[in-house]
Amino acid sequence: MNPTAERILAGDLRALARAATAVENRTSESRDLLRELFPHTGRAVIIGITGAPGAGKSTLVDQFIRLLRAEAKTVGILAVDPSSPYTGGAILGDRVRMQDHHADPGVFIRSMATRGSLGGLAAATTDMALLLDAAGRDVVIVETVGVGQAEVEIAQLADVTVVVLVPGMGDDIQANKAGIMEIADVFALNKADHAGIDRLQREVETAQSFDHRPDGWVPPLIRVIASEGQGVAETLAAVRHFRDTIHHAPRTAALWTHRLQQLIRERLLERIPAALIEEAAARIARREQDPYSAAADILRYSCSFTPPEEHSH
Amino acid sequence: MNPTAERILAGDLRALARAATAVENRTSESRDLLRELFPHTGRAVIIGITGAPGAGKSTLVDQFIRLLRAEAKTVGILAVDPSSPYTGGAILGDRVRMQDHHADPGVFIRSMATRGSLGGLAAATTDMALLLDAAGRDVVIVETVGVGQAEVEIAQLADVTVVVLVPGMGDDIQANKAGIMEIADVFALNKADHAGIDRLQREVETAQSFDHRPDGWVPPLIRVIASEGQGVAETLAAVRHFRDTIHHAPRTAALWTHRLQQLIRERLLERIPAALIEEAAARIARREQDPYSAAADILRYSCSFTPPEEHSH
Repeated sequence: MNPTAERILAGDLRALARAATAVENRTSESRDLLRELFPHTGRAVIIGITGAPGAGKSTLVDQFIRLLRAEAKTVGILAVDPSSPYTGGAILGDRVRMQDHHADPGVFIRSMATRGSLGGLAAATTDMALLLDAAGRDVVIVETVGVGQAEVEIAQLADVTVVVLVPGMGDDIQANKAGIMEIADVFALNKADHAGIDRLQREVETAQSFDHRPDGWVPPLIRVIASEGQGVAETLAAVRHFRDTIHHAPRTAALWTHRLQQLIRERLLERIPAALIEEAAARIARREQDPYSAAADILRYSCSFTPPEEHSH
Repeated sequence: MNPTAERILAGDLRALARAATAVENRTSESRDLLRELFPHTGRAVIIGITGAPGAGKSTLVDQFIRLLRAEAKTVGILAVDPSSPYTGGAILGDRVRMQDHHADPGVFIRSMATRGSLGGLAAATTDMALLLDAAGRDVVIVETVGVGQAEVEIAQLADVTVVVLVPGMGDDIQANKAGIMEIADVFALNKADHAGIDRLQREVETAQSFDHRPDGWVPPLIRVIASEGQGVAETLAAVRHFRDTIHHAPRTAALWTHRLQQLIRERLLERIPAALIEEAAARIARREQDPYSAAADILRYSCSFTPPEEHSH
C-alpha cells in the first residue's frame, strides 16, 4: 500500500489535508489514492444539510459539531456552494467556523467550489466524502445551498439529508416543492421563535400530504432555534433514527450508477486529443460541419465499441 | 432534404412547434433534423437575459418583444429555469406571456426545464436556439435565472447577454460579482424609480473598475423601468451596438468546444449497455470493486482508443 494511504488510514491529519487538496485538484495521484482507500470506506455516517441562503445551515452545522464532539465523535465538514462557480475559494461562514475549531483535530473542514462543471463539483464532493470516510471520520456533514441539481446529486451521497427551512419562505417552498420533498429525510424548521412558524409547518405538512415515499418514511418536522441550540439534539436524533431504520441501498446503487457514468465520461474526454475537438469546433463555428456529425466522427475515431443493435451483424 | 426540415426553413409554425418538442425530448429524429438545419443557422441575433428572481426579466423581455414586433422582426423566446429540475413544465411568467402573444405568429415561446442534468439543459437550449435560428427567427431571446453554471453556458451561446439588476441586491452582487462580470455585456438597472438605484449603480461601477475585458468593451449601465417601458429602447440599442461592434468569435469557438464535449459524452454513454454500468454499481455498493477501476474497465471494454501517451509502443 502506498505510504500516503497508510498515513491517512492511521489518522494522520497532515496527510489527510494534503490528500484533500489533491482530490480537489483531481490529480492522477489522488485517483490512485482513492482507489486504494475505497475498500476502507462505508463506515462514516454522511449527513447532508441544505437550505436557502440565510436559513441558518451553518449555525445548525456548528451545533451538530458541538454535540458530536461532546460524544468524542470525529467530524468532517464539506461546505459546497454551487452558486459561486467562480470564487474557487472558501465561503464566508466557513472561515468563521475555521477559527472556532482550528485547534480541534477532531474537526476537519473543507469548502468546495465549482471549478469546472456542476457535475465536477458533485464528483469532487463524493470523492472528498470518501476520503474523510476512509480517514476514519465518524460523521461527515455535507452542507449545500438550495435544492438545485448539484444538491440532488449530493443528497444521493448522503445517508440522511436535513432540509433547513425558515418562516417567510413560503414562496420558495412552492417553487421548489418537488425538489425539497425529493431530498428531505428530516425537516429542521429553524428560527422557530419567529412569526410565521405555524404557517411554515402547515405548508410543509400540506406538501407532505401529497407525497408518499416508497420507503414509507414520513420526514419529521422539528422546530429549531439553531442560534440557541434548541431542537438541535432532536434533529440529530431524527437523523440517527432515519439512518438506523431505513434501508437506503437503492439510493446507494443510484449514486454509483450516476458516479460511474461521470467517471467514464471524464476519462473518455481525457483520452481524446484536445486538438481534435478544437479543430472540429472551429469548423463548426465556420458552419463547415454540424456539431452532431463532428461528435459522431470523433467518437468513431476514438472508440471502436460496437453498439448493441449492431451486434447481430 | 427531409420534408420537416423544408417546412421549418419555409417558416411553417406547426412543423416548428413539433420539432421543438422533439428537440426537448432529444429524440433521434430531432438530431437528424438539427444536422440538416445546421448550415442554415447563424443568422439570428441571440440575446441572453439573466437576473435574480423578481428582477423583472420577464417584463423586460415583454418590452423587447413589443419593440421588435413594431419593427416587424420575428422573435423566439426560450425561458430557462435551471433551479427547478423537477417541474418539467412551463414557468409561471411564461404562461402569462403566452396569453399576450398567442395570436401573434411572429412570437414563438418555449420554456425549458431540466429533465436530467444541468448540462442537458444547456445542450437542449443550444439546440432549441439553433432550431429557432434555422426557422428564420430574427431574434432569439434566452431568459435564465441567476448566474449559475447553466447561465454561463447559455451566455456562451448568446451573441449579447443582458444582466438585469434591481436596487437592494447589493449582497447578491457581492456574492456573484465574478459571475456577473463574466457574463454581462449590458447591465439593465431595473426599477430605477426605487430608492437605492444610485447605490446599485455605484456598486456595479466599482466592480467594473476592477474588471477589464480583453475585448475592451465596458458594459454600459442603463437605468430601466421595465414596467413602464422606460430605458427599454436604450437597452436594445446597447445590445445592438455590442453585437455590431465586438467580434465574439473566441466565445463561439469556446461554445462549440464545450458543446462537442457534451455531445461526445452523451453519445458514448448511449453506446455502453446500461446493464454493464448497473452491475458495476452494485459491485461498488458492496465494496467489491472501487469506482475508479470499474470506470476504467468499462471504458477499456467499450473503447479501443489508444491514449496519446501509449502511442509510442
